[in-house]
Amino acid sequence: MEENKQITIAVDAMGGDFAPAETVKGAVLATEADKGLCVKLYGIEDQVQAELAKLSYDADRVFVVHAPDVIETCESPVKAIKAKKESSMVKALYAVKSGEADAIVSCGNTGALLVGGQLIVGRIRGIERAALAFLVPSMKEPVMLIDAGANVDCRPEMLLQFAQMGSIYMEDVVHRTSPKIGLLNIGEEEEKGNAQVKATLPLLKECESINFAGSVQSREMTDGIVDVVVCDGFIGNTILKTYEGVAAFMLQSLKTTFTNSGLKTKIGAGLIKSDLKNMLKQFSVEEYGGAPMLGLKNLVVKTHGNSYAPEIRNAILQCRDFVAADIAAKISAALGTEPK
Amino acid sequence: MEENKQITIAVDAMGGDFAPAETVKGAVLATEADKGLCVKLYGIEDQVQAELAKLSYDADRVFVVHAPDVIETCESPVKAIKAKKESSMVKALYAVKSGEADAIVSCGNTGALLVGGQLIVGRIRGIERAALAFLVPSMKEPVMLIDAGANVDCRPEMLLQFAQMGSIYMEDVVHRTSPKIGLLNIGEEEEKGNAQVKATLPLLKECESINFAGSVQSREMTDGIVDVVVCDGFIGNTILKTYEGVAAFMLQSLKTTFTNSGLKTKIGAGLIKSDLKNMLKQFSVEEYGGAPMLGLKNLVVKTHGNSYAPEIRNAILQCRDFVAADIAAKISAALGTEPK
Repeated sequence: MEENKQITIAVDAMGGDFAPAETVKGAVLATEADKGLCVKLYGIEDQVQAELAKLSYDADRVFVVHAPDVIETCESPVKAIKAKKESSMVKALYAVKSGEADAIVSCGNTGALLVGGQLIVGRIRGIERAALAFLVPSMKEPVMLIDAGANVDCRPEMLLQFAQMGSIYMEDVVHRTSPKIGLLNIGEEEEKGNAQVKATLPLLKECESINFAGSVQSREMTDGIVDVVVCDGFIGNTILKTYEGVAAFMLQSLKTTFTNSGLKTKIGAGLIKSDLKNMLKQFSVEEYGGAPMLGLKNLVVKTHGNSYAPEIRNAILQCRDFVAADIAAKISAALGTEPK
Repeated sequence: MEENKQITIAVDAMGGDFAPAETVKGAVLATEADKGLCVKLYGIEDQVQAELAKLSYDADRVFVVHAPDVIETCESPVKAIKAKKESSMVKALYAVKSGEADAIVSCGNTGALLVGGQLIVGRIRGIERAALAFLVPSMKEPVMLIDAGANVDCRPEMLLQFAQMGSIYMEDVVHRTSPKIGLLNIGEEEEKGNAQVKATLPLLKECESINFAGSVQSREMTDGIVDVVVCDGFIGNTILKTYEGVAAFMLQSLKTTFTNSGLKTKIGAGLIKSDLKNMLKQFSVEEYGGAPMLGLKNLVVKTHGNSYAPEIRNAILQCRDFVAADIAAKISAALGTEPK
């Protein structure tokens, strides 16, 4: 890759609960934070321009590409990707495929983005399935959960590749030395696990390119005892949603406690407010930006459906690091079977 | 069942991280709370008596049964149950089988208790597998998670029975009218889910004896939108451990925030302390007592390995309600194929 190359990010401006207002704002914020960054906003031109008109931005680095159609969150992923060629998501995916853009960021229909990533951007030859890699807050450093929801009913060989891709990512992008890889299980003993886990354990043990730490339980994930937790996408997605649910529940309970309490607690709550806010930030999965799909030829990043401008900005800026680390090339070199 | 029948609970006094001190104390506390309750403490007699000597208790309702052996938490469940006939857990399980006791409460090796429950106490005829039913705190009422870890790689017919048993339990023991049953999934759309979920959905839809509410995601579990969440034991156990991990992580972060903060926050923390403690209690899974195994001929209740006396007391008292509701008979009548 050239030094100081301008990086272009395709943004699915119509995807997400607060699109296009927040996606457009987030994209502009990202170009302000990094003067070497260029964004292409894919969406219904009138609507995107109307949002842009509310902001001040560098017209040399913020472009609008008209895409008259929108994939809604409730749509069937495969059908939507195949039928809606003029949607913001599909057009942005084609921009990444063709090299017009270095990456796509979308808060839209997760399933459609996953399908579109595999069908349009395409997998690295030799990679069976692309996986969604999510950084989850823990008591120590964030832990990568892979697969966080792209593939269900994974074969052991797929989980092995997830482990290898996760290891490369944590080493090269997140800069962890010899990252520890754990396989999600419900106990540490040899006999524990379902058929999938039991068949995967020996593959991970034998794999010399990773630092395999054995079985880990989801409770240990939040302790941060490994760098990568490998699991089937059904389980990974369930872990992520449990995480979100418990964090939201605790937050709600704190609020209720402070609101319904006596004067003493109300005064106390006022005093701790700012420190508490900072503390709670670490449980916001959005803080960590988007989740990349590992195993694709180019970069596809999923952000949460209810992202606001700051999270979209973070996800776009994070793409810079992904592109700079050239993670797809590294995965291809280590695991791919592309002709050299 | 006779009215005012004295209920006898077999307690595995040697099981758990703080046994026998906390198990013995918890059992004595339960007999104090309910004068109609009798406990049999299974364990190494000297050690159990030494703990009893520290307490005042009603010798007419607290008995010690010598069991020289102990099943450790790290042991292989099947081997331990088969080899350690003189262990506190196995002897207590036989007491339940023979009718000497109405229920067993154990904080010991979960796998061993699950295996022992099926092998020694035995399943109701017609029930394919017994499942661990766990009440999880939510924003509304607690939600039952079934199976919380007894069976991995469940067939759809097993999940159907878990749904039916969970429904009977929530209706008859927890007194929810027409309890809503959800199947754990990673989305609500028809096409979502792994092979297991897709094969199970039609069975639950067709089942007339339950109020099936469709797919639910783990995030919705904490919202409390259903009464019962049905899933494979691998997933249920992972949900439970994620729940514990996130709650522990948030608690730890609160403590760190208050300890490392400035004077203002320290004063504030002092003021909110008691209300906060009460709030946090609801996230303690132990508050809800033990988890019954549904589908067995008699009552087997698992309590958390790190339970203290109050939780053990709660679990024992909870057994009273289980026995009174005669849940095994109700499950047998609805689902069993025992000769009438």
